[in-house]
Amino acid sequence: MLTPADIARALDAKIKPLGSLGRLETLAAQIAAFQGALTPRMEACTLTVFAGDHGVAEEGVSAYPSAVTAQMRDALLAGGAGAAVLARALGVGLVVVDAGVNGAKSADPRCLDRRIAAGTRNFLQEPAMDAAERDAAIAAGRAIGAASPGEAAAFGEVGIGNTSAAALIIHKLTGAPLEHLVGRGAGLDDAGLAHKHEVLRRAAARTAPRLSPGGALAEYGGFEIVMMAGAMIGAAEAGKLVLVDGAIAGAAALAACGLAPALRPALIFAHRSAEPCAAVALEAFEAEPLLDLGLRLGEGTGALLAWPLVKAAAAMLREMATFETAGVSGPA
Amino acid sequence: MLTPADIARALDAKIKPLGSLGRLETLAAQIAAFQGALTPRMEACTLTVFAGDHGVAEEGVSAYPSAVTAQMRDALLAGGAGAAVLARALGVGLVVVDAGVNGAKSADPRCLDRRIAAGTRNFLQEPAMDAAERDAAIAAGRAIGAASPGEAAAFGEVGIGNTSAAALIIHKLTGAPLEHLVGRGAGLDDAGLAHKHEVLRRAAARTAPRLSPGGALAEYGGFEIVMMAGAMIGAAEAGKLVLVDGAIAGAAALAACGLAPALRPALIFAHRSAEPCAAVALEAFEAEPLLDLGLRLGEGTGALLAWPLVKAAAAMLREMATFETAGVSGPA
Repeated sequence: MLTPADIARALDAKIKPLGSLGRLETLAAQIAAFQGALTPRMEACTLTVFAGDHGVAEEGVSAYPSAVTAQMRDALLAGGAGAAVLARALGVGLVVVDAGVNGAKSADPRCLDRRIAAGTRNFLQEPAMDAAERDAAIAAGRAIGAASPGEAAAFGEVGIGNTSAAALIIHKLTGAPLEHLVGRGAGLDDAGLAHKHEVLRRAAARTAPRLSPGGALAEYGGFEIVMMAGAMIGAAEAGKLVLVDGAIAGAAALAACGLAPALRPALIFAHRSAEPCAAVALEAFEAEPLLDLGLRLGEGTGALLAWPLVKAAAAMLREMATFETAGVSGPA
Repeated sequence: MLTPADIARALDAKIKPLGSLGRLETLAAQIAAFQGALTPRMEACTLTVFAGDHGVAEEGVSAYPSAVTAQMRDALLAGGAGAAVLARALGVGLVVVDAGVNGAKSADPRCLDRRIAAGTRNFLQEPAMDAAERDAAIAAGRAIGAASPGEAAAFGEVGIGNTSAAALIIHKLTGAPLEHLVGRGAGLDDAGLAHKHEVLRRAAARTAPRLSPGGALAEYGGFEIVMMAGAMIGAAEAGKLVLVDGAIAGAAALAACGLAPALRPALIFAHRSAEPCAAVALEAFEAEPLLDLGLRLGEGTGALLAWPLVKAAAAMLREMATFETAGVSGPA
């Protein structure tokens, strides 16, 4: 059994001033502890993007129409969407899942059809999904996460309306004031943002002030969020590190850790999304993400950009020479 | 001729909410402007590490003995030093240059022997180098930078004592108070840090309050710093972007931009080093680096970790689909 002291000793033996690789050292320590190895392997990463529609979109909480969810699913498959381009540039595999799109199914055989329903119900009026739908989404996600190729699994999403869902899930799980959680999403103007605040305030009032992880997912979740939560659990159970992207993935990770607390050591927080609810999720995890680049696109783009750091951190611990082996002098 | 408006239009046409890729968009805009192309290419990067010794090390300004400079040069060549490991993990080429090591030359034929002298003179007593040595180092660097393979050139250094040299160069170029510029380097304790402050205060008093770029390099430079400044100029002249690492590279970049102001648009600031003089150099450039990971190792490790972001930014602009080509709906 590897102890934190074993890992610290291995890092301190490397030919560098003590602690001089900063966050790369704490990241390497997390990877080593998770893999139980002082020579961790981190060769491949796959990004899985879940697509799902939200009934609440009919309330006008997004700057974009619902049709964009299916269009972006198809653009990911065609290779022209942001995450598809970045995945290619960074050598990360890409899997696209229809978790619950409202519209025609993809004709592309590479699209995993795990559609629970053609979008959720409008959570302003009623629960977004029932318990059976939620459990089916979690189970489907779990299998996808377990099968994700590589030592690290990144997850992203497309779903018009899903910053509304994420804000409510984080609100019900953490108790953070809703007004700190609501943002412009894909680009609402001031009037649109005020309207979104009002819709979400009413939707929040429909249920108890705090909900269980399973309760929050069913009441407000999108199928893409619930399936992602399941995928995080499945990936970690299969020994993969989980790269947590931004706002929506933060909500999924919070719910997933509530359902399966053993997930926590697998989580690597990739990027501080500019969407406000992301900061609250990070606080709840007491996590400082690796990157802060002002991204708010979703699709897993933040997680993708953190992958090279994760790979590099593992390589550092696995391959760097020690003062002893390299014959380098220590401090005078 | 590509205008900023052309580049902004190209970015805004991509299938994403306006501005939602944050720093990746400003980075892509810089790359496009520098290459004069809306489909910028960014396929390969080479890290060149310059090694050089400092006469002032005999004053006890570093926690490590001077012998470590040659040892780290050799560890880079052997592949076990931090930058060698990260370069391998991230697919970046590595070139090692002996710019002025005090000790035996490397037996490895891959080591570029551009040694100006076996270390600089002690700048507490006299100029570190004369004008002819400085000019030879700049010329050697310029040729190395111009020949660096790939669209981006990263530069790193090893040189016991070189945070002292960097602090003085930045002090003499910016006028920032010396006490804000002096740090623990590779790991001085409190007594060592107080001694370093005192040595550098006396060394600074030996010359005029402000110096020209060429003057500062000759008075206080290490051969690795001066050669790196030349390499930055040579790389940019040859159309390569320059990834600026941390504290030492910041000093080299300040001097290089003083010598060749046309260099500025080529500079990408990679990482906010934990060594104090790095922050002052970044301020002088009004630059916000891409990464802030608490690194203070040198060797170009910060620049290496930023390379995937640079590659991804260019790929985004070159390969992402537009709303028109992908048939994705705009805001409702």
